[in-house]
Amino acid sequence: MTSFMNPADFGAALRSLTDPDRDAAEAARMRQAQLTKPAGSLGRLEEIAIFLAGWQGRAVPVLDRVRAVVFAGNHGVTVHGVSAYPAAVTVEMVRNFERGGAAINALTSAVGMELQVVALDLDRPTADFTMGAAMTEEQCLAAVNAGAATVDGNLDLLALGEMGIGNSTAAAALCLASYGGEAADWVGPGTGVDAAGISRKTRVVQAGVALHAAEPATPFETLRRLGGREIAAIAGAVVRARQLGVPVVLDGFISCAAIAPLAAACPGITGHCIAGHVSAEPGHARLLDRLGLSPLLALGMRLGEASGAAVATAVIRAALAAHAGMATFAEAGVSEAG
Amino acid sequence: MTSFMNPADFGAALRSLTDPDRDAAEAARMRQAQLTKPAGSLGRLEEIAIFLAGWQGRAVPVLDRVRAVVFAGNHGVTVHGVSAYPAAVTVEMVRNFERGGAAINALTSAVGMELQVVALDLDRPTADFTMGAAMTEEQCLAAVNAGAATVDGNLDLLALGEMGIGNSTAAAALCLASYGGEAADWVGPGTGVDAAGISRKTRVVQAGVALHAAEPATPFETLRRLGGREIAAIAGAVVRARQLGVPVVLDGFISCAAIAPLAAACPGITGHCIAGHVSAEPGHARLLDRLGLSPLLALGMRLGEASGAAVATAVIRAALAAHAGMATFAEAGVSEAG
Repeated sequence: MTSFMNPADFGAALRSLTDPDRDAAEAARMRQAQLTKPAGSLGRLEEIAIFLAGWQGRAVPVLDRVRAVVFAGNHGVTVHGVSAYPAAVTVEMVRNFERGGAAINALTSAVGMELQVVALDLDRPTADFTMGAAMTEEQCLAAVNAGAATVDGNLDLLALGEMGIGNSTAAAALCLASYGGEAADWVGPGTGVDAAGISRKTRVVQAGVALHAAEPATPFETLRRLGGREIAAIAGAVVRARQLGVPVVLDGFISCAAIAPLAAACPGITGHCIAGHVSAEPGHARLLDRLGLSPLLALGMRLGEASGAAVATAVIRAALAAHAGMATFAEAGVSEAG
Repeated sequence: MTSFMNPADFGAALRSLTDPDRDAAEAARMRQAQLTKPAGSLGRLEEIAIFLAGWQGRAVPVLDRVRAVVFAGNHGVTVHGVSAYPAAVTVEMVRNFERGGAAINALTSAVGMELQVVALDLDRPTADFTMGAAMTEEQCLAAVNAGAATVDGNLDLLALGEMGIGNSTAAAALCLASYGGEAADWVGPGTGVDAAGISRKTRVVQAGVALHAAEPATPFETLRRLGGREIAAIAGAVVRARQLGVPVVLDGFISCAAIAPLAAACPGITGHCIAGHVSAEPGHARLLDRLGLSPLLALGMRLGEASGAAVATAVIRAALAAHAGMATFAEAGVSEAG
């Protein structure tokens, strides 16, 4: 598939969302009803199998090709002291991903997923969004297309994550611009700032959203003004995955915030997405509620890097193993409920 | 290790519980603090790694040998119409386990666990506990020892589950006898009985607990009077696992109810146990709270068979993969928090 040509092209994709294959989903639902267990007794595992059947277009979905993509970007807003870590850590962690030493390396290996790392102009941080737009139109479109380019229509499942010192501040701004409320509703400790750091983040988010409040609020414009390259890339990957019918596992607060401007305008964009987990970042539960997504896991994780999405994929594998591998009542000669 | 000789021997084991290896747990905690992530950012995954380090006695715990055991038993209390399924299903499902067609077969295969199925005198259901004790002392001791015999000191982790038409009624009775409250607090739909069925179950549980209320309430006696063979076997396996230092993943309401009489007398018995999940059976969340256990997963499952414990083991594998595989800040050359 070609790139999004311009912001209007991206917006048009959002307004023409495809549906899952209802016949395949229904066939999966029928199969679940015949497997040797009380109806519904595998709970969320059954829902996952039916969901993936719909998006993969087959009654017995598979996870042969699963890719995790971690996008990395740097943020001008770090000048305000919004992170517990120096901005250099973004580059250092990308090197760690490439050498295999990060959590996501261990997790994708354990769960049987490909890992792709996409570093986006780390030597050119976005602009400080309290002073102007974080990105030019060209920069944001390039990031959206870098995300879209990681999606392959042959993938059975795509997990999306990020790394970027300062990006929980950008994420909070995106949530506030998309769903309103108070800045404090969306700001949390991120990698671990103290109370004073949270106060600084809150003021920065308020100021940034106020600065851009009178400007056009299309999903693309909101991403461009308040987001970051890795965030725009996630948005691009989610939209491209929908165009190609590839189901997505979202990770934490920042990954979900990447689609907040999209979902605020076009709520159906979450239709092919599973929320892998709810993180310890306080705004994430609130955001998942706005996105209409119920998280698969709640393990108190708050790392990003697609780490929660990867652990969720282990559960999704289990769901599909039961769906594909179990005998029916008829096959096993087991009596049904009387 | 030899069998429990008599009920007093079982009680004595409960009163002399071993502790985890505190040095190994501390070494694991130190390692977690040095891995390339913000401190605590893997949440529950970090806690699991430290917990298993303590019980396995090594700073980097492993899951090379993981066994799921499903115990099956039949229940005289089914004469009261307490289940949605005929009692014959217990035997039929054991055959399904042996042929590889049940959920637990697919799940243990996907997660990399051995599966052992132990059918306990399925042609001799326990007695109806509203008329007398469910088991003789000899029967209950044999079941406890059948459970203990499945535990091998070389196991890295043991997942325990059950199958037995009628056993959510026995489980509710064990909870009521152990922790009090109302019968209705502990009775739920089980495999899927309707409101009238729940009313019958509630009356049966009330009547059974009332009948035995004046008798000695040692853990063994409570298991013998109100439990079942598969339930007593789980209790025996949990105690033997503690003696051998093998950590346990508990499954759903019935598996947890098996240790309710033990934990009510000796709360420390849950020290080597992870609650794999909280099931959809309403009494399970209440029971986990009494046991002092926080469930790893909440997927709306209610199947038993160790199915929830098996899915939880996939998450535990991910936790250990991160613990063992990640680089430290020093190894990766990543800056720490400023």
